[in-house]
Order: sequence, then structure tokens, then C-alpha cells
Amino acid sequence: MTPTTSDIRQAVIGQKLYVASLFEALRAGSSVGEGVTRDSYGRGEQFAHQLIAEHAKAMGLETQRDHAANLFMTLAGKNRGTPRLLTGSHLDSVANGGNFDGAAGVIAGLVALKALQHLGVQPTCDITTVAIRAEESVWFQVSYIGSRSAFGVLPLGALEARRVDTGRTLAEHMLECGAHADAVRSGEASLQASSIRAFVELHIEQSPQLIEAGFPLGIGTGVPGNFRYPAVKILGEYAHVGLARRFRRDAVVAASELAVGLDEIWRTSDAAGQPMAFTIGRFYTDPSEHALTKVAGELTLSLDVRAYTSAHLAELEAQLFQLASDIEKKRSVRFEFGARTSADVAPSHPELLSRLTHWAKALGIETMPLASPASHDTATFTVAGVPSAMLFVRNANGSHNPREAMEIDDFLDGVCVLTAWLAAEALAPQTAHAAR
Amino acid sequence: MTPTTSDIRQAVIGQKLYVASLFEALRAGSSVGEGVTRDSYGRGEQFAHQLIAEHAKAMGLETQRDHAANLFMTLAGKNRGTPRLLTGSHLDSVANGGNFDGAAGVIAGLVALKALQHLGVQPTCDITTVAIRAEESVWFQVSYIGSRSAFGVLPLGALEARRVDTGRTLAEHMLECGAHADAVRSGEASLQASSIRAFVELHIEQSPQLIEAGFPLGIGTGVPGNFRYPAVKILGEYAHVGLARRFRRDAVVAASELAVGLDEIWRTSDAAGQPMAFTIGRFYTDPSEHALTKVAGELTLSLDVRAYTSAHLAELEAQLFQLASDIEKKRSVRFEFGARTSADVAPSHPELLSRLTHWAKALGIETMPLASPASHDTATFTVAGVPSAMLFVRNANGSHNPREAMEIDDFLDGVCVLTAWLAAEALAPQTAHAAR
Repeated sequence: MTPTTSDIRQAVIGQKLYVASLFEALRAGSSVGEGVTRDSYGRGEQFAHQLIAEHAKAMGLETQRDHAANLFMTLAGKNRGTPRLLTGSHLDSVANGGNFDGAAGVIAGLVALKALQHLGVQPTCDITTVAIRAEESVWFQVSYIGSRSAFGVLPLGALEARRVDTGRTLAEHMLECGAHADAVRSGEASLQASSIRAFVELHIEQSPQLIEAGFPLGIGTGVPGNFRYPAVKILGEYAHVGLARRFRRDAVVAASELAVGLDEIWRTSDAAGQPMAFTIGRFYTDPSEHALTKVAGELTLSLDVRAYTSAHLAELEAQLFQLASDIEKKRSVRFEFGARTSADVAPSHPELLSRLTHWAKALGIETMPLASPASHDTATFTVAGVPSAMLFVRNANGSHNPREAMEIDDFLDGVCVLTAWLAAEALAPQTAHAAR
Repeated sequence: MTPTTSDIRQAVIGQKLYVASLFEALRAGSSVGEGVTRDSYGRGEQFAHQLIAEHAKAMGLETQRDHAANLFMTLAGKNRGTPRLLTGSHLDSVANGGNFDGAAGVIAGLVALKALQHLGVQPTCDITTVAIRAEESVWFQVSYIGSRSAFGVLPLGALEARRVDTGRTLAEHMLECGAHADAVRSGEASLQASSIRAFVELHIEQSPQLIEAGFPLGIGTGVPGNFRYPAVKILGEYAHVGLARRFRRDAVVAASELAVGLDEIWRTSDAAGQPMAFTIGRFYTDPSEHALTKVAGELTLSLDVRAYTSAHLAELEAQLFQLASDIEKKRSVRFEFGARTSADVAPSHPELLSRLTHWAKALGIETMPLASPASHDTATFTVAGVPSAMLFVRNANGSHNPREAMEIDDFLDGVCVLTAWLAAEALAPQTAHAAR
């Protein structure tokens, strides 16, 4: 029997204290200074995976780890051979980050499954909450490691990427956490698009757009694609502070011109209604060479540029090169862009969007469509061909910092929508696969 | 009897092989990688002082070290009580710097004294070549340590400044090199303006202005004054890469806007015929916090601004504050300027300028007046009230780098002018003090 939206709301809201204590246990075990550090394939992430697995087992879910040590927690359906419903997110965090980025989506999946159990829902297909590994690209400078490994599409070279803090390779770190680097290397897959009906990821918002608009919940319209240059070098010439302006080849001024130029491109793009984002997270002169009275001959910066269509991304990269080329001529410097990585754009599935919107409305929860410029594992599912979408919970203080501020009530609103959708899909006739 | 310019030229040029070997010995003993490192009150500077002292003793000069371990090498005059003539420069260098910045002026002084000895000149007053300590402010972030200690005007706090590489204080480093930090602290002076007739410092040029103009030698019109902020902090907020542009408080973009804005101020000032310079030598996000996918919440930069009049300096500082204030409003960041140091402007003595120009002309050496934006110990002498000026030797590749390129012939031209001037002054009637 299909539960009512009122039943669903009660089954979810009733877990409020449990939810708060689970978030607290997660924080306590990975707290470092002000924030939390759950390093990808390291101590912090490993702790989170163990804690979540214990809770899943206590709920009677089937737990399973794949070759990349992603954790699958399944509520068995009546017909186990049919494509399943999937939800979840990642458990790793940036260094000194917040407790909710990633983990909220995994806990949301557990709470939804617990609500379904409580309501006595007998799903026709398996429903699985997945705790994904290594989503935060800060550690290995590779994106979507866990989800891409699950689909067998992690680029080979990624296994040799070195973690920025330990200097050891992804393969080494994987082995320590019970993953099989060789299976990842050989392209083994634990997920096939054909055996997944749909994937929904709940996540906190990273820009206070929902706060600004006054909605507790946003429905993600897609994950932007990106291109990244983790270590662009601007090479000029070190020189005495006495060098006249016309002779200088100043890497600091040249790099600054790039940053200001990119900011202007962003402003223009926003004004034209074409959302994008660029971020220069790292920006530094060489500490072994730089000095108060020395013109800087070298500067290194990291660059991440994202947008919502492939055409816009290509246009932005062309603008970047043009800007760099103009600066090279004007400042007598040279740009070395170095390694490049990229990710495809991943629009949400339209039918899935309308279903999530429908269930929010039925539950009396106000939502808005949200273009969030962040990267998410959902993109891997979308690119693989799985109908996917995201639910964003409002958060005043942005993400990747200790001040993330997600209200538990807003979170539970999101879980209500997730649960209602899962219940409806899991009780619908097998032939549905309607989200495709 | 006064030597002719032809005698002087021969006495100087005849030392060409000796000069080359002395520069080579200096380089060999302080070479590190490509360049040389003669750290202030450290191993490299100490080596240079010992080498130069040995050569001075071999020449029969009186050598003496003052309380700051500055080295005075004196050719005794007939009347030792009268004010003396002084020349020289510093022996320290930046890390991985060039062999000529500083040392050329000391070696020029020795070569000039040797020429005077060779010519049998019996000076009426003492003529001293001084090897000054710790001119390069990169080490302790304090300028003119040696020369200001000699005049007893080093600010007290400077003794507690820590060397950027060792982390130990100037006082500790001084003691290791035979200086008496307590005497420096109590304001003891080894030099009084009243007992110095004039000071001339020979130095390589730091900007290829002479190369551009085609002159081997420049006559310095003065040392610019400066203000410095060794560690300006731009404080924004660390945030997730997903944060929309309008919410960002991006320290990288804000700092870049400062650098580009200062460059524009410089361009405008140059165009208006008001020479100046600004240098941001250090420019860096926090390595323990920055990341590829994190908006930077903090950036640190060093700032050095110099100009040739006090009024212009004051105007530039006001423009700096206005620029920072505009950026604070536009980018929602905050500037913390931190510690400030400054140095007064020090114009060359007009009569001394015309005498040096006269001797160059008499020797058939083409010169031009040169506004060099670098700092020099000469400024300490000028500010103390000593008639001072500088001779610059052309150099194609700037200074503070291993590629400094001074031709020995150009250097010897400079020494000829210095020697001719010293000879004329030292043989002039005692009542002269004419340079004042």
C-alpha cells in the first residue's frame, strides 16, 4: 500500500534526534580544529565509511563494498533482478571543511530507507544508498574517483596521481582502504547504467541562492562541466626592484591581469544570462625565490572554469587563451598551462525533475530550480546514461568551510521529498522505468 | 703633484687582471647554484669581508672594523684630523644574486686606492674605502642596517628582526660576525657627518637604462625614498567553488585588482614625468588552506613603493589607500596593511654631481645623469648630511639575479672617474670642503 505524504512526513520527522546524533558522531570522529577533515582514501573518510556501515547493518540493510571501496547499503526489493533505485553521495571532505558537504546525501539515503522500513513499504526493486569514495578533487586533483571507478571509467593515469599532502599515489591509498587498485585499473565496474532506474543525490547548496530566495530546498537543473589547469605557470624574469617598468617581466602583475580579466569575463557572462564560474584557488610566487625587493619572475596558479553547456565551455577556454596571449605580449611573460583535466556537462533528467517537483509540492515544501556551479558525483551517473537529478538543501555559509550551516528541519524536508519519490517509484508497476 | 688624467687611466687600467681575479675569488667563495649568496651577517657576507680585508692588508691599508662589523680600509692622509673622503658599498647580496651588486663599489674603492698609491699621491686627508654590512633588506626586512648602525641611527626594534631563512634575530647574527649588538643598541656611532668631506658609491645599474642609452657610466641624481609594507593581508572568505560571483569574497581577485591598479598608477606617473616604482615581490595564498576547488579567503603580499620627492611618496600612499578602500567595498574584503617601514628621499649633492661629471669628461668617458629607483647606502649618508653621489656602471641584465652583466672595461671607466675625483679632492687645499 502506498503511504500518504502525511505518513512519509511523520516517518521522516520522527527521526530528527537520530539524524542529529548521527551527524554529531560523524563530526566528532573527523573533527580537526574548527572543521572536519575526511581525507579521500585516508583516515577521515575511512572512519566515516565504518560509522555509516555500522548504522546500515543495525538497520538490517545489506551492505557491500565494491572494488573501489564504495559502500552500497540496500533495502532488498521483491524482484531483485530488475533495475534498482539509487541515492547517496560522498563521505570525504576537503581539509578543514564542513560536516555536511557529501555526508548529508548519504545520511539522507539511510533516513529515507529507515522511513520506508518504518512504513512497511515492500519495494518491487532494490533501493540502494551508496556512500561514494573520493569525490573531493583537492586530494588527488582528480575528480569523481569513487563514482567513475564504480562505472569502470576512471582514467588509467589517475591511479598514479599523488595525494597533495602525503605524496603517495591513489593506488597506494586505495589499497590501504581495502580497495583493489588492480580491478580499478582493469576497468571493472560495480555499476551499469542499464541496471539503475534513476539516481538522486541530496547535497547542501554551496552558494546561498536558496537562502537569498527564501526556499528550504532546490531541485538541481544539472551539474556544470569544467576544465581545469591545476598548475598554470606564468614565467617572467626575476629582477632587482630598481628595474624600470618598461623593462620588467613581472609575473605578479601578469597573473593579476589574468585574474582580473577572468573576473570581467564572468561578470559579462552572468549579465548575458550564461551562468559560469572560475576559481583561482592557489596563487603563489615561489617561496624559495620571492623577496620584498625583487620583481617576481614566476607565479603558479590553479584554475577551474565551469559552465552548463559544452559550447559555452569551449568559448570560455578560447577566451582564456586569448587573454593569456594578450598578456604574454603586453607583459613579456610566458604562460605554461601544464596538465589539463575536464568533465562533461551533465544536465538533470527532465522527467525526474518534474517528479521531484511534484512530490515537494504534494508535501507542501516550497522549492525552486537551482543551477549550482559545483561538481557532484551525479555528473558521473548522468554521463553514464542514468536518469539523475539533485536535491539541494539551503545553507547560509557556503561549503568547503567549517561554517556550513544546514538546518536539520530543512534537511528533513529534503529527505521527505526523496522518500516520497522512492516510495512511489518502488511501488509503481515494474514496467514503469518511466524516468528514462 | 697632481697626476694627469692619462696617468690615472693607466694606473687604473693596469689593474685589469687583478680586478678580474678579485671578482672571481669573490664569486668562487660565495657561489651557490647559478648565482652567489652573500647573506647579511651570515656565512656568505662574512667570507667576502675576510677576503676584502686580506687584500686591503696586502696593500698596506689600515683596516678597522666598527661595532657593526663594517670594514674601513684607509689610505692615511698627511693631516689625519681633517674630515676624510669616503667611498665604498656593501658586500652582502640577495639569495642567488649576482656577483657585482654591492661588491663592485668596494672593489672600486680598493682599486682607486691602489692607483693612488701607484701614482704616489700623498693625500692631505684620509681616504677610506668602506665595506658596509647588510644593505640587502631581503634578509631581515630592514634597510641599510650596516650604514645606519655606523651613524648610530638604526631603529631599536631592528635588532630583534628575524632573518627570513634562519628565524634568528639580527642581534644574534651580528654577534656571530664580531659585531657588538649592545653598542648598536646604545646608538654608538663610528661615522659623524662632520668628519666626512664627501661619500661616493659606485654601483652597477639595476635597470638597463645606460645600455639603452649607450653610455658606460651614469651619475646618480639621488636615491628615491620609499615606504614598505612587508606583509599586507587581504582577508576575504574561504568558500566552495560553487559559490556564485555575487557572494564571493575572493582574496585572489581582490589582490589582483590591487596589483593591476598599482601598475596603472605607475604607468600614469611615468607618463607625467614623475618617476616611481612599485614592486609586489611576494604574493601568495596560504599553502595550508588553498586548494583547486576553494575560493581563496586570504592572500599575503609584500609591497615596496619608491619615488624621488617626499610629496610624491605621500601622494602615492594616499592613492594606495584609496585603491584598497575601493577594492574593499567592491569585493567585500578587508586589507590589513601590517607593519610599515620607510626611508627618506636622498638627492645627490649638486656640486659633487658636477665634479664627477667634470672628471668623466676630462677622462673622455661619456656619462648621463641617472635616476635609479633602487635603494642604496648612499641614502643613509645623504640623510645624515654628508655630500654624497653615486656612479652607476651599465649592466644589461638587471640586478639581484645571477645574470648581472657588467663589463670590466666599463667598471674601470667608473674607477677612473672615482680615482680622478679622489686625487683632486685629496690634493686640494685643506680649506676646500668645497663639496659642502
